[in-house]
Amino acid sequence: MKVRLVSSVHFSAAHRLHSESLDEDTNRRTFDKCNNPSAHGHTYALEVTVEGEIDPATGYVMDVAQLARVIRERVVEPLDRRHLNHDVDFLSGINPTAENIAAGIWARLQGRVAPARLARVVLNETEKNRVAYKGETP
Amino acid sequence: MKVRLVSSVHFSAAHRLHSESLDEDTNRRTFDKCNNPSAHGHTYALEVTVEGEIDPATGYVMDVAQLARVIRERVVEPLDRRHLNHDVDFLSGINPTAENIAAGIWARLQGRVAPARLARVVLNETEKNRVAYKGETP
Amino acid sequence: MKVRLVSSVHFSAAHRLHSESLDEDTNRRTFDKCNNPSAHGHTYALEVTVEGEIDPATGYVMDVAQLARVIRERVVEPLDRRHLNHDVDFLSGINPTAENIAAGIWARLQGRVAPARLARVVLNETEKNRVAYKGETP
Amino acid sequence: MKVRLVSSVHFSAAHRLHSESLDEDTNRRTFDKCNNPSAHGHTYALEVTVEGEIDPATGYVMDVAQLARVIRERVVEPLDRRHLNHDVDFLSGINPTAENIAAGIWARLQGRVAPARLARVVLNETEKNRVAYKGETP
Amino acid sequence: MKVRLVSSVHFSAAHRLHSESLDEDTNRRTFDKCNNPSAHGHTYALEVTVEGEIDPATGYVMDVAQLARVIRERVVEPLDRRHLNHDVDFLSGINPTAENIAAGIWARLQGRVAPARLARVVLNETEKNRVAYKGETP
Amino acid sequence: MKVRLVSSVHFSAAHRLHSESLDEDTNRRTFDKCNNPSAHGHTYALEVTVEGEIDPATGYVMDVAQLARVIRERVVEPLDRRHLNHDVDFLSGINPTAENIAAGIWARLQGRVAPARLARVVLNETEKNRVAYKGETP
Repeated sequence: MKVRLVSSVHFSAAHRLHSESLDEDTNRRTFDKCNNPSAHGHTYALEVTVEGEIDPATGYVMDVAQLARVIRERVVEPLDRRHLNHDVDFLSGINPTAENIAAGIWARLQGRVAPARLARVVLNETEKNRVAYKGETP
Repeated sequence: MKVRLVSSVHFSAAHRLHSESLDEDTNRRTFDKCNNPSAHGHTYALEVTVEGEIDPATGYVMDVAQLARVIRERVVEPLDRRHLNHDVDFLSGINPTAENIAAGIWARLQGRVAPARLARVVLNETEKNRVAYKGETP
Repeated sequence: MKVRLVSSVHFSAAHRLHSESLDEDTNRRTFDKCNNPSAHGHTYALEVTVEGEIDPATGYVMDVAQLARVIRERVVEPLDRRHLNHDVDFLSGINPTAENIAAGIWARLQGRVAPARLARVVLNETEKNRVAYKGETP
Repeated sequence: MKVRLVSSVHFSAAHRLHSESLDEDTNRRTFDKCNNPSAHGHTYALEVTVEGEIDPATGYVMDVAQLARVIRERVVEPLDRRHLNHDVDFLSGINPTAENIAAGIWARLQGRVAPARLARVVLNETEKNRVAYKGETP
Repeated sequence: MKVRLVSSVHFSAAHRLHSESLDEDTNRRTFDKCNNPSAHGHTYALEVTVEGEIDPATGYVMDVAQLARVIRERVVEPLDRRHLNHDVDFLSGINPTAENIAAGIWARLQGRVAPARLARVVLNETEKNRVAYKGETP
Repeated sequence: MKVRLVSSVHFSAAHRLHSESLDEDTNRRTFDKCNNPSAHGHTYALEVTVEGEIDPATGYVMDVAQLARVIRERVVEPLDRRHLNHDVDFLSGINPTAENIAAGIWARLQGRVAPARLARVVLNETEKNRVAYKGETP
């Protein structure tokens, strides 16, 4: 019996949308007020979904407290109360759009949620928009 | 890297559930108090999901502000503060159930969210029920 | 020990903002798209607060199931799936703004929540605005 | 046109995580404070998704009030204000993890939502974790 | 400048509504299914409000992390994953209605939130009802 | 009939908690990771409450669209997608704690919501904490 388990968490971070591959003017037109040089920020709500079989002995897909611990160590610790353009190794040189942050979070959790497998990362940036990433399409 | 992007919005509308293909009595039994002739209404919460590749230059699947603009022009403008049985061209002659409204919204957005593609429309009618539409199954 | 008890409920209704005391043009300018003649509607979220002493025998200010029953009979039954301009006796001749609906709901519940006393009525019209009414100031 | 319809409901129940297949010590280490012998509880938020074609006569996949009735009779009645380890026939002998409860709810609703088909059961245990079950993989 | 600071937290607990001062039959009629002998439970959402002057040096009424720590130690530790009728010293012999739990939580926090003062405790038992307690009226 | 009207809005901003009146070490101990030099940020949820008499002609305390316009011009425009330590005139030289931001927002709105009067400003910084400010106590 395959079941999905979702663990939700929040982190607060600053970012500036700005791409090295675009000139100043294109950056300004593309990212508008999110390109503001002195940065802005969000209280991000993150939902991590893993999938696996129910272990007949425990009734768990995996221990949700263990899942929460992995998310805290691998994602919340390096991101919470940080500036995503400056403070985060795994986002270094990457324009911190919600899409890119979600893909980065996926890479941080991939292979760390055994015996379950990572199924989806959802990142809510504001009450009006969020992104979902399910890994590379094979 | 395929990512989904979700934009959320609200609109407020009146409707009466009543089908031209059913007689008065069947309408009353089928739609119960939602068949009330003088109508009732909802604050609808709409979530539009698009899917696409992350553009390596911008880090965007598509500009979420652009997505919000399309939803506002194509969906919110014609529906907000309207009577769905009387005021809306694209719902004309259609019984405005959540299912039919969602399918109508899909048709309004289809082909308008390039470079992404429309993936899902979720329409929350009350805090207790919602519908999801993903287009015609090929 | 005085405690407040809050019971929450939803109802769905149509309304049109239009005042008999104002001319057509002023109605249009004042209520804008909410003045749309064929009406629109909302899923209203209502919170009713009562206040009283904890009964030492039961540990209740009042039975919350009894409070919910009173709200259902006195408020939800007459308002849910109705047109507030046409179908509701206690709003007859009243412009159904959130303010006026809240005051009308207060009058419907006043004196009906013994042994507690009615303390506040909060009416959420959309996710962006709500009103609160606490009765006439003595 | 295939559409999904989601009906949401809450129930409040006590449970203790404890597996007959594990010894006392492993139970304690695995379930930690959720293994507390005198039990704890949750206000569970349940979302049931069904899928089907829109009926061209009614505009419904199925009557959402009928879906809510089935959920109330088959799930809420036996679970609400109960102790999941002691009071519920269909969970008898099962460790009431969110995963197992969701699978049990699925079995209770399977084949009862015609003309739609059951598509997913989501069970929120706390504001931080939930599970989703879609039935046996064929 | 007096400001209120609110810290929110969740805990999960079992309880049975049953009063020693009432006979079995009155208990059953008063508390209905909440009187179920084997107990049920809730995911309680607690909001603690403190009030104080903004410290001109820090800009804080009080350190919200310190407030959260006090709530965790004084309230969440003794209540989370517990049976409120059996496991909690400060609720011993008290019928664990939301009203009584809120008053008990107030007593646990009273005098512990210096330099601010305790202003209100709000306890959400389900999505439909909550209580608020502000201490003894002088 | 006095009624309160609440308008809700979101803005996203970066900030660093750091007080000019405290030395580096005290800043670090007091504000911990919120003192991170490169800043972090939040999606702030702001609720502005005004109070007034219901105008018998309109049924409004004040036009909620007008209230929303004032909040947008006076608060959201200068704060959204900004760095609160660097970009905002009315917070210049002020440590941008939630308390100080709320007081600053109050000052921006004071006297601008006629014919109603400003009654309360609530600022949610994360899902776990918020502040409320009601103006100077006379």
